[in-house]
Formats: sequence, structure tokens, C-alpha cells
Amino acid sequence: MKSEPRKTRKKKGTSKKARGSRSNRKYVFPFRQGKAEGGKGDKNLLGGKGANLAEMCNLDLPVPPGFTLSTELCTWFYEHGKKYPLTLRADVAKALARLEKEMGKRFGDAHNPLLVSVRSGARVSMPGMMDTVLNLGLNDETVGGLIQRTGNARFGWDAYRRFVQMYGDVVLGIRAHGEEDDPFSEALEALKRKRKVKEDTDLSAQDLEGLVATYKELVLKHTSRPFPDDPMDQLWGAIGAVFDSWHNERAVLYRQMNSIPSGWGTAVNVVAMVFGNLGETSGTGVAFTRDPSNGEKRFYGEYLMNAQGEDVVAGIRTPHPIAELKRSSPKAWKELNRIQKLLEKHYRDMQDLEFTIEDGKLYMLQCRTGKRTGAAAVRIAVDMVREGLIKKEEALLRVEPETLNQLLQPIFHPEDQERAREGGRLLTRGLNAGPGAATGRIAFTAGDAEQRAKGGDPVLLVRNETSPEDIRGMQASTGILTARGGMTSHAALVARQMGKVCVAGAGELQIDAKKRVLQVAGRTLRNGDWLSLDGSTGEVFEGKLETRPSEVYESIFKKTRKQPSALVQAFDKLMRWSDKVRKLGVRTNADQPDQCRTAVAFGAEGIGLCRTEHMFFEGEKILPFREMILADSPADREKALGKLLPLQRKDFEGIFKAMGQRPVTIRTLDPPLHEFLPHEDEDVRALASQLGLKPAQVQAKIDSLVELNPMLGHRGCRLGISFPEITRMQARAIFEAACNVARRAKKKPRPEIMIPLVGSPKELALQAAEIRAVAEEVFTHKKMRLPYLVGTMIELPRAALVADQIADHAEFFSFGTNDLTQTTYGISRDDAGKFIPSYVEREIFEADPFARLDRSGVGRLMDLAVRDGRRSRAKIKLGICGEHGGDPSSIEICQELNLDYVSCSPFRIPIARLAAAQAALRS
Amino acid sequence: MKSEPRKTRKKKGTSKKARGSRSNRKYVFPFRQGKAEGGKGDKNLLGGKGANLAEMCNLDLPVPPGFTLSTELCTWFYEHGKKYPLTLRADVAKALARLEKEMGKRFGDAHNPLLVSVRSGARVSMPGMMDTVLNLGLNDETVGGLIQRTGNARFGWDAYRRFVQMYGDVVLGIRAHGEEDDPFSEALEALKRKRKVKEDTDLSAQDLEGLVATYKELVLKHTSRPFPDDPMDQLWGAIGAVFDSWHNERAVLYRQMNSIPSGWGTAVNVVAMVFGNLGETSGTGVAFTRDPSNGEKRFYGEYLMNAQGEDVVAGIRTPHPIAELKRSSPKAWKELNRIQKLLEKHYRDMQDLEFTIEDGKLYMLQCRTGKRTGAAAVRIAVDMVREGLIKKEEALLRVEPETLNQLLQPIFHPEDQERAREGGRLLTRGLNAGPGAATGRIAFTAGDAEQRAKGGDPVLLVRNETSPEDIRGMQASTGILTARGGMTSHAALVARQMGKVCVAGAGELQIDAKKRVLQVAGRTLRNGDWLSLDGSTGEVFEGKLETRPSEVYESIFKKTRKQPSALVQAFDKLMRWSDKVRKLGVRTNADQPDQCRTAVAFGAEGIGLCRTEHMFFEGEKILPFREMILADSPADREKALGKLLPLQRKDFEGIFKAMGQRPVTIRTLDPPLHEFLPHEDEDVRALASQLGLKPAQVQAKIDSLVELNPMLGHRGCRLGISFPEITRMQARAIFEAACNVARRAKKKPRPEIMIPLVGSPKELALQAAEIRAVAEEVFTHKKMRLPYLVGTMIELPRAALVADQIADHAEFFSFGTNDLTQTTYGISRDDAGKFIPSYVEREIFEADPFARLDRSGVGRLMDLAVRDGRRSRAKIKLGICGEHGGDPSSIEICQELNLDYVSCSPFRIPIARLAAAQAALRS
Repeated sequence: MKSEPRKTRKKKGTSKKARGSRSNRKYVFPFRQGKAEGGKGDKNLLGGKGANLAEMCNLDLPVPPGFTLSTELCTWFYEHGKKYPLTLRADVAKALARLEKEMGKRFGDAHNPLLVSVRSGARVSMPGMMDTVLNLGLNDETVGGLIQRTGNARFGWDAYRRFVQMYGDVVLGIRAHGEEDDPFSEALEALKRKRKVKEDTDLSAQDLEGLVATYKELVLKHTSRPFPDDPMDQLWGAIGAVFDSWHNERAVLYRQMNSIPSGWGTAVNVVAMVFGNLGETSGTGVAFTRDPSNGEKRFYGEYLMNAQGEDVVAGIRTPHPIAELKRSSPKAWKELNRIQKLLEKHYRDMQDLEFTIEDGKLYMLQCRTGKRTGAAAVRIAVDMVREGLIKKEEALLRVEPETLNQLLQPIFHPEDQERAREGGRLLTRGLNAGPGAATGRIAFTAGDAEQRAKGGDPVLLVRNETSPEDIRGMQASTGILTARGGMTSHAALVARQMGKVCVAGAGELQIDAKKRVLQVAGRTLRNGDWLSLDGSTGEVFEGKLETRPSEVYESIFKKTRKQPSALVQAFDKLMRWSDKVRKLGVRTNADQPDQCRTAVAFGAEGIGLCRTEHMFFEGEKILPFREMILADSPADREKALGKLLPLQRKDFEGIFKAMGQRPVTIRTLDPPLHEFLPHEDEDVRALASQLGLKPAQVQAKIDSLVELNPMLGHRGCRLGISFPEITRMQARAIFEAACNVARRAKKKPRPEIMIPLVGSPKELALQAAEIRAVAEEVFTHKKMRLPYLVGTMIELPRAALVADQIADHAEFFSFGTNDLTQTTYGISRDDAGKFIPSYVEREIFEADPFARLDRSGVGRLMDLAVRDGRRSRAKIKLGICGEHGGDPSSIEICQELNLDYVSCSPFRIPIARLAAAQAALRS
Repeated sequence: MKSEPRKTRKKKGTSKKARGSRSNRKYVFPFRQGKAEGGKGDKNLLGGKGANLAEMCNLDLPVPPGFTLSTELCTWFYEHGKKYPLTLRADVAKALARLEKEMGKRFGDAHNPLLVSVRSGARVSMPGMMDTVLNLGLNDETVGGLIQRTGNARFGWDAYRRFVQMYGDVVLGIRAHGEEDDPFSEALEALKRKRKVKEDTDLSAQDLEGLVATYKELVLKHTSRPFPDDPMDQLWGAIGAVFDSWHNERAVLYRQMNSIPSGWGTAVNVVAMVFGNLGETSGTGVAFTRDPSNGEKRFYGEYLMNAQGEDVVAGIRTPHPIAELKRSSPKAWKELNRIQKLLEKHYRDMQDLEFTIEDGKLYMLQCRTGKRTGAAAVRIAVDMVREGLIKKEEALLRVEPETLNQLLQPIFHPEDQERAREGGRLLTRGLNAGPGAATGRIAFTAGDAEQRAKGGDPVLLVRNETSPEDIRGMQASTGILTARGGMTSHAALVARQMGKVCVAGAGELQIDAKKRVLQVAGRTLRNGDWLSLDGSTGEVFEGKLETRPSEVYESIFKKTRKQPSALVQAFDKLMRWSDKVRKLGVRTNADQPDQCRTAVAFGAEGIGLCRTEHMFFEGEKILPFREMILADSPADREKALGKLLPLQRKDFEGIFKAMGQRPVTIRTLDPPLHEFLPHEDEDVRALASQLGLKPAQVQAKIDSLVELNPMLGHRGCRLGISFPEITRMQARAIFEAACNVARRAKKKPRPEIMIPLVGSPKELALQAAEIRAVAEEVFTHKKMRLPYLVGTMIELPRAALVADQIADHAEFFSFGTNDLTQTTYGISRDDAGKFIPSYVEREIFEADPFARLDRSGVGRLMDLAVRDGRRSRAKIKLGICGEHGGDPSSIEICQELNLDYVSCSPFRIPIARLAAAQAALRS
């Protein structure tokens, strides 16, 4: 088993010599248009942002000069109790001096001041999670120089007040906990109300100057210290804050959600400021080389004139579509269009660009691989193969399997939606920022959303705009609606990544988060009211709307005559490529004929786990099953089993019919018997009267079945060994059903009977003997033979440890990784809620081991079982049927172990097919 | 890890050629005085009995001729659906013909009939478990010949009636289920009552002839078939019955109790009959070359004149001491005395002999290594070293460690016992058949004993005599009392082997098992009444008597001036030899100062497991501990912990004082918190009022702590991670106590702090950091430093699987095999009662894995952990602290794994020391 990459891999681009020896390592990497140390291959060292800035410099693109402090410095910082190497100050001073020379400005100069931005940049993009400070270098003196050089007092004071606010927030920790508590925003809004203006841009230079003073008072009040005036103090404060923020709560949470090791660290980029808010010939924007929501091949983005980047990203003003830039700034548009094409071709992937136009001149502030919806990912990958830009294998690796979920997500029922529109329930429209349809109850704060989600109802988070503080609330919601911000706003980016439905920038909404009231279209909605969002059209509806399957789902299940959409075609192609490449079979966990049909349509090649116990809970079956449990003698038990036999046989006939000649793995009875008995007095009495028993008799039996640790109790094959007549009944039902279907349908079902919770070879031997004996009886009686297998779950550590002996009796193993994880960790899934979340949060566990297969513990047991099992029976069939069977990172482990198949729930089958293809390509 | 010997090892003595090739194997092995095929090295092939008969023949001792059917025939029999090889009948016929020639008699001859015994004989002795048929060959014709040749009609008919009874029981399955149901015995007793005689020998030839007819009618009645008259039919029936009995319930149970593989099979010995019941010059007896109860070097045994062997063994008549044989049969006595000396010297071990005197001539029927009490085993082993018969290493291997239990078993308090004697509570005396003192409630049947034992009270089984059917009842009892039978009766043999207290042959007892009444000394005792047995003196007392420690225990704990007894001296010597030889350290599991002192006296070299939670249940500590659990805030929790600190510190001071400079492994809090809270309404109310809370508050907390599977829940280090203040308090108490004791006692305590239930390296890292931080604080404050270790339990499969990473943070591992067995098997010890006994009975498990370490599953995990742990930290200290640490077969695994120490309860320390020495010798 290979271990996960934890340490920095060997870097390309910068030689070891360039970085210096370990004792005297180089931590500061300058860049300017035409020349930079390092490039796109140096993300581990320079962070994603720094590496791409360097790359763009080397491509001779217009990038403002600057320097990057490497991720290794961050690591050093944390390893040395938040201190810096002795030589660092001198190195930074040197880089700064070079920057001053290149810009022809001086840091802290009262007449011609150099201003810089300080931004974090980890190996992988972590949008909004890390902090940025712009306009650093301003103070009461340098602001004068800035005003003098630009001739724009309003601009100067606006830059200054933005800087104080941002620095106050990020560096000094006067954080905005939701807009209602942010003192800076409150002061700004108060001033706007006083001046009776709507936009920030309507405030005068004098207003802004006054605001700077107000902000500085706020800083003094909150921190008991005056705002730092010395630009070098400002710079070191900002660098420290970036490093500190690597371990802030939001960053840790993001890393957990995205499985990013905490040891990677972040780089810091110090870049000369260029200004998009110098006036109407300046501007700033964000763009994608293709549409990130549907993957269409068109240059896509948004910009604002006379604005700084944060205005676009934070969504405070609603920006204009990028195409309009042609009119606003024709020269810059032309240049930008040239660069976006060049970059997509250079990087061979859709790029996400940030740019600023200063007085008509374009500057590239950032480029990175663009985040996209699942639909866009599929379409871009497939399109790029057709365009000859990438190969099929690359296309397969480009799509995160988990995002396919979004393609399969529900939509509203079109007729219902039309009726809602006509009935006046359409409240407003916003941007279609996150595809899918969601209905839920309104929450106005992240905290409310988390709280309400615990109650079980679906939640829609409704905000003016979201910020990183809202991440937990967004995670808890099924959909997000914002009044402000565009397709690239925080809300939109994060929602897409999470696969949440999102409607952004619905400007007609009037939200009072404090009072928990939303007003729109003359209606007032309150906390907890129902609302529905169409993230694909941007529509917002009052009340509940029924959701229904997605476009892809439709295309699979309803064979319509109309031409499949571009997305459906791309999806189909990707699935076909996946199937050609993958080595793992993909089966499903299903125990109802309709589930089976769904799974087959999604590409299931068989059933990996049919749980027979679910069947007993249906309608008429529970009574004879309870009768069987309550039986005092084997004879009474046989009688009750006799009633169950035809019912179970019918169940299996339905499944065999749906699955045709595909293999069907059926697990014999698994849960402890007390799970089937009632627990309320009333139900006990009812059952007793149904069976003609005394309630006390029934209660006594229930009491006798109580276990202290039922998970480790009398269940699985232990039941089959205590009551072999149950196993025999189930085997009889299976074989009779298989013969009946074979006779009628002329397709031979392929039952694979699986014994649960085996820990010792003889348990399996005994149960297998019962099953084989029944098979012979049935085949003789039915005058036909069918192929079948008898195998076992490997779901106890001991089973994995003695797999060689178990394989003597097992024709297949199926790893039951849910239980195997429980026993390997000694953690009950039912009780783990008390500590697993905090374990993941504190990075004691890298991930929840029930969601993601634990490579080093459970994976090692599986490896032992696979090796020993194959040694003892070379052709043993190996699969997995735990929840992990649908998890991409777990599927990769299954590929490494060279299993024959994975099995997962029907809706995850496309994900598993793609993940299996990727695993095959990576192996 | 080596696997256990399952297959027949390479045999000595008989060459492969002699046994024939596989396809034409030799199954029949004849023997006669002076000549036999095979010898004592051929136990695997000929069984113990057959091999020793052959050996005695080769030593030219007087053994009646016969032949042995090998154990391989038994295996063949079971492998071929209970059939025999084709050539077997011819081979047996040939052997029989040779026997006829040697004896000058013919099988089935009406005038001079050859009679034979048919006896089982497995590799190891299984007393009473397998079945024997004597006098085979008798029928209505041959009985005439027997009478004619012996001139003794009474003898002839007695032999015949014994044969019919035994054959009816063993071969035809008319089994005696306790004497009250045995139809043959009932008929005999009825006849004796009718004739008004007491002894069987008082019945006339005519009486016995009538009895034969009665017996045959009983056979016809019970089996619906006449008794078989043809001697060849009788012989094949008997052989088949012996083979069948290998798998009867009693044999299977015995094999489980003694861990004998079922694949070994049994041999069958067919031996020409000689008769001890030919009259007053004939007799039969059983003898030991040394005293099997105390090991004294004296020829020891019992005989009966005019009797068959079964009379001695079954204890129906009370036999005479062997020394009296000098008068009864001087010539035979002299010969027997010569032979017993020769055999002990030849076998170099104490021998158990069976002999018969036919008309003054001695025949040896059996010799085998004699079973003995623990005390005898110790003394004989040590004596034989002094005598130069064996070496020290052999002596160590001669004593089954488990039997040392008997030496340590309690005795009655001498003064109480004296008072009971004087107070008239001494009811009677019997034979001191099983050492130790026991007090308990009377049960008259094995079933009653089993039933009553489940209730928890100690049980004494009181019977006229015991039989193999009683084994379960004996196992369930603490002591056994019989009215009949001697030191070698079934009751005595089995009780000694089980380490039970036994008084046998207390002839004054009048027992009516049907009515459940015992009458003795004018008193009547009933089912459930209290009784006390002194198995060392043979005394039986009415009522309860307080028990107290044993002779060895006394010698260890009370330093008296008087000369230690021979047993105590031998025990001390054996322990000293053990300590020289063993490589494993032996520690104890103890959490009270008095337990520590006991353990040190028994030879403990440290504490391997000090459970801190037991301390909290004592007196004053439970209240602040509950207060701590119920605390709502960390501050309240700290307050309660502040109250606990001085109490815990005092606990640890006591332990450190008792242990001196020996290492003391202290485990931090392990059980789930709900275990410390009351569960009854009344107690909840009391607790609430003590703490000034509302009962509902307390109840709510209790409810919130409920877990579905507490074994897999919020416990172990998971508590310490959720509430690090608990770990810190415990660490502070440990280090402060250690410093205080170091200052006062001038001996430096060596605490080893152990973190439970670690599954991930970071759990240990976090807890170890807390502990090390507290240690530094305490050492600084106390101005002294002490050596200490921080390590972990390995008690979860995952801990074993990632042991390399865990060893980065652990200075020692201690295998917590109780929990490791639970999670490896996925079996809760608390709930396993429902199926583990039946699993052991059905041989699904070779042994209860909680009693005996599972080599292939749990052992393999331990092996991985040991290898990986040492790879990562070469000098890591390794131990075991599960219950298995005191189990000899588990200790052998610990030796193979090369652990540093085992840890067990104080009373098992001598056992562990010896077992460790044996493991070292075997490794």
C-alpha cells in the first residue's frame, strides 16, 4: 500500500541550489514581467498564486512586480514557535528595495509611496479561507503622496479607508462576525444614511477622510492601541497574520472538508498595488476562459469600473458581464481576450483570471485553474478532448467524481414550476450560481441554519452576501440565496464547490438579518418559512415546490426522441470512456426490484449487497418473522419460517427478474433479533394479542434479547448457527426463486450467497454446508441446476487475519467496511457522534473513517485478507460492499488492492464508475 | 508464529515399513510378554494404553497378551463414514487366532472359551471418558466352559452378568443416567434387598444366573433386540462403540476442557481376560509409585480381593490400602513391588499401575504416568531432581502451571475449624481426595449443581459416587463429596484434575438423591443447605466455615520460625528455578496497596496494570467524581477535580510505598462516565440532593451519556481528549505522590503512565503532551526529578496495525488483550454468554478466546504490533495486561513474541512464573 503524499515532493523549476541549502534556505522569491524565479511547477514551494504569478511573468504577461515568501517559511514559522529565520528581515528588505526600484516608488515615501498587497497562497486554492490586505503602506503621510501622484483625493482616501478596514479585520482581529456586528461596515452604512446616498462611490473625498478617522478610533477602541503608522510594521503584521490564518478555524475546517494536510503551509505574496478605482478608466474583474456553470466554450466573467477586486468577489456591487468591457475599455478588452486564450492553451485547462485596469492599462493579478460545477467539468473535459487540447485519459482525471452528484441532483417538476410561476409564487430572479433545485425553510444566519438543520428540515440560507464565517451554515443548508454578489461571489464559489443549489445577487431582496425578515415582491417572509430555489434558472419561489430528477437522470430513465443536450452527451461519453478504462466492476447495494432497475440504468453490473432483513419489515412479513423470533421450540420456529418462505421467495424472484444474468449477492440475516421486536408497551400488547400470547411472555422474550453491546452481540452468522433453520429457509427461498425465474425468463440468475460476521473458518463451513444441502434439495426437486457461489463478508478484524483459512470455504469475500471500521477502531458508529466531529476538527483523524476508508488501519487489514485469501484460493472473487464502495478515495484503495468490484448505492454508481477509471489510470 | 501440532508427529519405534504404505496401512498390532510391536514412543499410533502395554511386554513384564487397533484406524473410520478398511476383518481374525494360540483357549468355545476386554486408549489418558467392555466372549454356552475350567459357578455367572450389564451400557446405549435411572443397578439392588444382603459377593451363583436372565430381558425391552450371542458380533460391536465414543458428548467436553484436538482419534485394545474375581486368591488393584495427593515417596494404592478392576475404580466397594496386599497375596506383593520400582525408574516419572491377581499370579493391565495434585506434582518434580532421576529443566516442565492453583487454595481458619469440631458440627470423615477447603450449598445431582451455580452461590456436589455424566456438575461445583469410592475413584481423579476440593468414600453418608436428602450423624440436610469440606483432612462439617489462605500462602505471608514443610520447600525451589530460567518479567494487576503487597510476596516485579477507576468507587471519592461528571462547565469540572486530586494522590502514595522501586504502570481513566452514575431513581434523587441539583438535571445528564454500544463508545483516551483536565488531574496526583514518596522513603518510584484505547497516533501524542507538561510543572515545584515513562495499551486492532506510528509517541506498549479480543472477534464479553459456550462445545472455537489467547487472530495482530513497534522504537518496552497474562498457553505466545513482561492477578503470579519458565525452555 502506498502512503499518501505528505511531504513536499521534488520540485521542478527552481533548483536546489537556487533555494539554498537546508541551513541557509532561500525563502524570498521575487518576480516581475518577463522574469521570475520558479513557475507553475512550484506550487508546493510558492503556493498556487505565487507559482502562477511567476509563470505569467515568464510568459511576459503584464503582472505587477512583487515577491513571494515560500510555504517553507510558513512551516519554519510554526516549527519555531512563530518566529522567523534570522536573515529574513534583510532578505525582505532587499526584495522590497528591488520592488521600489522597479515601480519607481518608495515604501513609506510621503510624496511617491509604494503600496503593496499582501495575500496568502497555499498549494491549492482555498477561496476566501485565507486573508488578504490591500493598499498596505498607507498612513496619514503617504496618503498625501498617493493623492498628489494620482491627483485624486477621493481615490486616496477611499484606498486608505479600505486599508484600515481590511487591516483592522485581518491583522488586528476586529473581525466581521456577520454584517450586523461589523463595526467598519456599520460606520460606512451610517455615513451613507447620513449623506442619503446608496453607493459607496457617491461618498465624497471628505466623507472618506472622515471615515478613516472614524475607523482609526474604532481600532483604538477595539484593540486599545493606535493603528500602526509605520509601513514596515504594517507589512510584518500582515505577513504574520497570513501565516496565523493558516491555523484559524475556517482554514482548518476547509482543509478537513477537502482533505488538505495541515503540514503544507501557505506562501505569502507581496505585490505592488495597481488600482482599479482610480476613476472611470480604471476597473477590475474576474473572468473564466469558459462558462464555469455549464462548461460552454465562451469567455465568461464580470467586471466593475472604478472598483477594487474585493468589490467583485465580495459581491457588494453587482458587476457587469465581461463582454461589456469591450465598450468600457476597448484596449484592455482586446489585451485581456488575447491573454485568456493564451493562458487556456498554455495551461490546457479552463482558467480563472483576476485583472485590474489602471488608467486603461491591463494588469493580471492572478490566474488559476477555474473551479466549475460538475456539469461544466464534464462538458469542458469532453470538449477539450474533441478540440485536441487533452487526451481522453486526462479528461477522465479532470472530473472530480464527487461532482457528478450535481448532474444527478433533482430539478423541480416542470409543470409544478410553471404553475408556481403563473400562480404568482415566483418572487424574483437572481443569478443561476449553483445548479439543482432545492426547497427548504429560511434561515437568516449561519448559526440559525446549523440549528435548524439539526431538526431535520431542509434549510435555505438567505443572506445579503456570505463570508467565510458562514461556511458551516452553508454546509448545513441545501441551498443558498444572496441579495448581492455575482457568479464569482463567495456564495456562488463555495456553493458550487459544495454541490449546493445557489441563487446569487437577487437584488430585489430586502433582507433584515437582525429582525429575521425578508421582503420581496410585496411579501414578507420570516425565519422558518418555506422557500424554493432553482439554481439552474435563478428563480426564487415562495413556498414548497416538489423536486424531481435531473436532466441526466431523465435522459437515462426516460427514453425521449429529442436530441440529448450537450451535457447529457458529454456525460454519456465520459461514462463510456470510464467503462473502457476501469478495471473494477461496479455493483450496487439494493434490496428492492425498483432500486435494482435504477442501479442497472446507472450502469450497475450486479448486486454487491442485498440485505434480506429490510424485506422482513415490509407489510405482511413482520408478523410471521416476529412469530419466528418468539417461538419457544424449533418446531414452532419452523412453522413461522414456513409462512415466511413464500414471501421471501417472491422478494427474490422480483430481484432476480430485475437483475437478469447479473450476479446477485444476497446476505443472510444479519441484525440482532431484538431489532425486529416492538419496544413500546402498546406495540408489545398488540403483538401479543396478534399471536395469542400474553404481553408478559412477549416482554420476557424482548428482555431476554437485550444486549449491552448489540453491535458485538448475537447477530450475523451467529444467528444462523444458533438457528440454522433460518439460514435454510433463506437459502430455500433464494434457490427456489432462482429456479422459478430461470424457468420463466430463460435467463439464469446468478445468486451469490453471503454469510455475515464470520470470524472463524468453521462458522462459514457450517453455514455453507447448510446452504449447499438446501441447494441440492431444491435442484433435485426442480430438476434443474444453477450456478451459485457461497462466500462471506470480511467485516471483523479476525476474519481478515485468518482469511487464508476462511478462503478454504469461501468462493468470494466482500469487505464489509462499515463494521470492519467499527471493530478496527473500536468505535460504534451509533455513538461516535460524541467525539468524531471534534476528532476530525482537531485533526486527530484525517477524515471520518466511516466516510473515507482508513488506509493505514482498515486498509492494511484488507491487504492482509486479499493476499492471504488469494494465496489460499487463487481465483477467489473479491469485492467491497460497505458505504466506502461509493467513495472515490476509497475506490482508489480498492484498485490498489486489485479487488474485482466495488458496490455502492444506485445514485453513486456513475461516481464509482468514474472513480474506478481514475484509480485504474493512476495505478 | 508456530502453529499447534495437529497432525500425527513422526513416530518412533515402529518403522514406516512395519506400518505399511498408506494404501495398505497396518492397523493391528499384537503384543505378548517379551514381545510387542512398538513401545512407549508410539502413543500417537497405539494410544497411551496400547503403547505402555507394548512397552511392558518388551520389558518382559507379566502382561496378558492382546492386540491394539491403531488410532489411524479411528481416523480412517471417521473419514470413511464409519466404515472399516476391507482387509481389517481378516487382520483381526489373524490376531485373534494368535491370541487363542497363546492362551490355549478359543473364542466362543463352549468348553475352554477365550474371553477378552475391549478398551479405548487415546494418545493422552482420558479417565472415565472412554468406554470399556470386560469379559467379552461370554454367552449361554461359553459361560458353561468358563465355569467348567474355573470350577467356580458363582464366578462364571458373575462375569457373565457384569459383561451383559457393561455391554448393555456401553455398546447398546442403555446408559446409566445417574444411579436412580440405571436399570441394571436397580435390578441388582432389588435382588440384594430381596436376598437381604449388603455386598454383591453375598449373592449366590444361582442369584447371578437369574440376574443374567433379568439383564437380558432389560436389553430386549430397551433395544427391542435380543442380546447378541455370537462372540464375533460382540467384538465388532464393542470396537465400533469405542470408536463412536470418541465423539460422544463427554469425550468432546473433556477434549475442550483439556484442549485435545478431535483429529487425534483413539486406539482400541483387545486383551485376553485375566480374572481378579476367581476367589480369595484373586484380586485387583490400582497403585501409584508415589503418593498422588502429596507427592510423598511411598508405594501407594488400593486393592480388592475377589473383584474386577471396575470395582476399585468405580468405588462401589471401599478397597484396602496396598500395603495390606503383603498379607493377602505375599508373592504377588513382592512381584508388584519389584515392578513398580522398575517402572518408575524406566519411565523416570511417577507411574499409575493397574494389576490383577489371578489365582495368585500377578498380571499388569496398565501403566501410565500418574495424575497427581498440584502439591504432589511440585514435590515429585523437585524430589526426582534430588534423586538424580531428572534434571531441573525437566522438573520445571513436569508441573502443569495451572495446578499450582491448588497449592495456593484456601484452607479453613484453624480455630474456626477446631471450634466446629468441638461444637459438634463435624458430621463425618471421608478420604482427603482433593486438597483445599470449600464451603457451599448442597446439590444432589449434576443438573442441580449447574443450576445453582448460575445463581452465584458456591455449590458442593454430594453423590453416592460420580460418573462421567456428572462432569459438568463437578465443573460447576467448588467441592465434591461422595459416599463411596476411594482415592482413585472417578470423583477423586476428576476433582484433583480440576483442582476442586474433594472428600470421597465417606461411607456414613446416607444419600437419597431422588428425595434430595442427606442423612448423617443423626442429622438431615437438604438441597441448598450449607456444608463445608476439608479436602486435605477429609472432614465434612455442617454449615458454613470461613476459609483462609493455604499452607504455601501462609509460608509466604507469615514468616514463622518453624521448619517449612516439604511441600513449601519444594514450591520455593521450583519458583527459584523458574526465575532463573524464565525470560519474561512477571508483573501484577493491582490497584490497592494490600493487593500490591500480596503480589510482591508472590514474586511480582512491578505493576503491569493499575486501574484508576476502581479507586473512584471507594467511599468519599465517588461524590466529587460524580460532581465532576455532572459539571456543566470546565470551571465546575476543575473545581470537582480539585477535590479529587488529594484523594487520588493518597491512593498513589500507598501504591508507590508498597511497590518501592519497582515499575508501576498506571492507566488513566478508562470506563465510560455513565458507569459512575447511579441508575435507580432513588439513588438519582439522593445524588441530586447531595449536590444541590434537581433530580431531573441529574437524570438528564445520565440520559445524555447513554450509549448503544458503550464498549465502542466514549471511553478510554477519548475521555481524556474530551476532558484533558481529568488526565491532568490524574497525572498531577501520580507525580506529586511519586515525589512525596521519593522524599520520604528514599526509594524512587517508577511510574509508567498508560493511555487506554488509543487507535490513532495523535490521540496518544495529545495525551502524552498533557502528562509531560504536568510532570514538568510538578518536578519544578517539588524541586526534584523522577524517571517516568508514557506509553499506551494496544487494545484496538487499529492500534496494532499502526503500531509503528504509535511507537513514535509511546515508550511502552501493553497489550490489553481483553478488549483486543473483543474487537478482533467483534464479540462483547458481556453478551457472548449466549453463544460462546455452544461455540466451544461445537468446536467452532478451539477454546474460549477470552480465557486463552487466540493465536491466529489476536496473536497475529500482536505479532504485527511487536515487529512494527520495535522497528520504529528499538527499545520499546512490551508487556501484556489482559487476563491472558496469567494463562500458561497465552504466556507461551508472549514468550514467542519476545515480550518483556506479563502481568496477572496476584494469586496467579506463581503460575505465571512457572509458565514463563516453561515457555523459555520450550522456545
